[in-house]
Amino acid sequence: MTSSVPRVRRTSTTLADGRELLYFDDTEPYVSGAATRRLDDPRPLPDRFAPVVDADGVSRPIRGPEMRYDVLTGEWVPMAAHRMNRTFLPPADANPLAPAKPGAAYSDGEIPAEDYDVVVFENRFPSLMTVPGVADEVSALNGEELYPVRPAVGRCEVICFSSDSTASLASVTPGRMRTVIEAWADRTTTLGALDGVEQVFCFENRGKEIGVTLHHPHGQIYAYPYLTPRTATMLRQARAHRERTGRNLLRDVLDAELRAGVRIVLESTHWVAYVPAAARWPVEVHLAPRRDVPDLPALTDDERADLATTYLTLLQRLDRFFVDPDGAPVPLPYIAAWHQAPVREGRDDLRLHLQLFSVLRAPGKLKYLAGSESAMGAWISDTTPERIAARLQELAR
Amino acid sequence: MTSSVPRVRRTSTTLADGRELLYFDDTEPYVSGAATRRLDDPRPLPDRFAPVVDADGVSRPIRGPEMRYDVLTGEWVPMAAHRMNRTFLPPADANPLAPAKPGAAYSDGEIPAEDYDVVVFENRFPSLMTVPGVADEVSALNGEELYPVRPAVGRCEVICFSSDSTASLASVTPGRMRTVIEAWADRTTTLGALDGVEQVFCFENRGKEIGVTLHHPHGQIYAYPYLTPRTATMLRQARAHRERTGRNLLRDVLDAELRAGVRIVLESTHWVAYVPAAARWPVEVHLAPRRDVPDLPALTDDERADLATTYLTLLQRLDRFFVDPDGAPVPLPYIAAWHQAPVREGRDDLRLHLQLFSVLRAPGKLKYLAGSESAMGAWISDTTPERIAARLQELAR
Repeated sequence: MTSSVPRVRRTSTTLADGRELLYFDDTEPYVSGAATRRLDDPRPLPDRFAPVVDADGVSRPIRGPEMRYDVLTGEWVPMAAHRMNRTFLPPADANPLAPAKPGAAYSDGEIPAEDYDVVVFENRFPSLMTVPGVADEVSALNGEELYPVRPAVGRCEVICFSSDSTASLASVTPGRMRTVIEAWADRTTTLGALDGVEQVFCFENRGKEIGVTLHHPHGQIYAYPYLTPRTATMLRQARAHRERTGRNLLRDVLDAELRAGVRIVLESTHWVAYVPAAARWPVEVHLAPRRDVPDLPALTDDERADLATTYLTLLQRLDRFFVDPDGAPVPLPYIAAWHQAPVREGRDDLRLHLQLFSVLRAPGKLKYLAGSESAMGAWISDTTPERIAARLQELAR
Repeated sequence: MTSSVPRVRRTSTTLADGRELLYFDDTEPYVSGAATRRLDDPRPLPDRFAPVVDADGVSRPIRGPEMRYDVLTGEWVPMAAHRMNRTFLPPADANPLAPAKPGAAYSDGEIPAEDYDVVVFENRFPSLMTVPGVADEVSALNGEELYPVRPAVGRCEVICFSSDSTASLASVTPGRMRTVIEAWADRTTTLGALDGVEQVFCFENRGKEIGVTLHHPHGQIYAYPYLTPRTATMLRQARAHRERTGRNLLRDVLDAELRAGVRIVLESTHWVAYVPAAARWPVEVHLAPRRDVPDLPALTDDERADLATTYLTLLQRLDRFFVDPDGAPVPLPYIAAWHQAPVREGRDDLRLHLQLFSVLRAPGKLKYLAGSESAMGAWISDTTPERIAARLQELAR
């Protein structure tokens, strides 16, 4: 198989409650689709858009999540209170991301196949969801024009990086990482084309320190119906920079990092990793392409191939950042966030980059977001970017 | 003692390393200052501004904390890396906020008095500190104009609400709460007048869930040399609202809440508590004065007296918000944040209010800030403001 031949087979199917599930198979004989059994989803899940019957027997159409405009900050806040009506929860010790047991007539997980490479499906309890028949219109909460409220349209998806529950993204092969990149790019294009979607965000939360109780290697993809606050802020900064200098802000940052050198952590043909000059987390690294690119779909084949190996190198190094008192590496809890240009604006001003960061200050010690950070948004760093970079450079040797 | 007589005696002293400590005594015979022994601080603390001697024997003047401008967000990030050079840490089980032991010649805590009512002192390892002789000037990190860097001038103070380590702010008397309010107002005025200070923030972090390991009832006061991101954002929103309507945004929000009624939690002569219409935390309440007031020093005597009892009522109710499986109340971990108008601008646009919120979703269950919140600033609420308000209303009965 050469790189000019499509190397990933994408197979779409539907779960029992109507949610979409997509297999991204990279290996002959394309296990999820063909050689082993792919099952229909046999679970007794009600149609997720079916009307809800109240305690008094009255049936009402579901409205889905809504979001409110926070007039003090100018930000939309999705309210996922509808998620509280959860039914059919798997047992606490079940792994809903595991493949179906071979030969089982019934799967209690989300994925009705006996094996898979990479799989993406709609979250069963999404914070953002487009409900057919619910108009995407603004209304006034309590009749107050100060309080706009709207359906929280969009989509929340889960992506499984491996069928092996004991794996991690850092432990997959470069070929599998490449498939993950293809899946991210596919979802960015597809979700970005949905009505009302303004921005697609591919990310991974890893570790119990940030509340992840499910150890199966997986990430998430959110398609927001608004620009997120950080994206809106970066866009404002990038536009002001363009106004002042005629140049792209994130390009200038990359060039400044390459000139300064001290915070560069890793360089490959197409990618550069550096600790940003004003890093605010105890561990933080940005990974950016050398070429100006708005998002993952805009990457060339070579850039994707290089990203697969470069990202693995970076993740593996981060898993050795901290060591326990016996000198054993401490797998890093982290958030890996792909910042992409919005779908409809800022395509030339925002530039693709991965922001990877951790709340871990030391083994067993967390940075807590207390009054200054949580109430005022005023970050205080307990370290310096140069110290973080020095440790990551040391691990390269 | 009538309310027209100054009821709090303020006594200033200096700790061994030069930091200021202030007693706010409200009770005859003004214990910290007079009747019981007030000690000089006998600890062998080096002058905090003394030059530091490097490992190679070279003496260099201390520079204090610095802050870097994050060009992607337009925010200043203080780097408190100098705090890592901590010496003379008290034993882990010591309580540095306890009063000195009676008759002891030596205190291993921060407060050299055998008793006190309310006390405020400069944090020994501050994130913000004005160092004499260090010019408050912007320079370019790595010679890059993209990366402005400045001394993190300002001040960080600790405030002890009681000398009783087992107390909480919710358990003090209304008279003592009034003294706390007087101390906050005093610090707001005094710190706001310091060179370079733009904003004063009085807050309390409570509970191990947000990283507070010291159970002694205390809060903090930060004097920032910049507008914090939330304040800058609220000011932008308030100015746009003024432009559009000619009115004060926070006034209009209070009026809208009073009209809507559903999220009102508590009303007194001078104060109103409500759950904001776009609350983002699992528990969140705002407490605002009925009169337009920029900050705590602008409150009248009557408003302060009313605040003392109203705040206690609110705190006591929050400590019953959650109950454990046996029906026992679960003291709420919380952040209580006093939003005040900045010192030099926005005095008519920003309006005093307390934002009190918790990361607790249920006993033993936290809301974690993962990818959407931490990387994108995009909040997802798991509940609704009306549910939070309903619980707080229920507790009033």
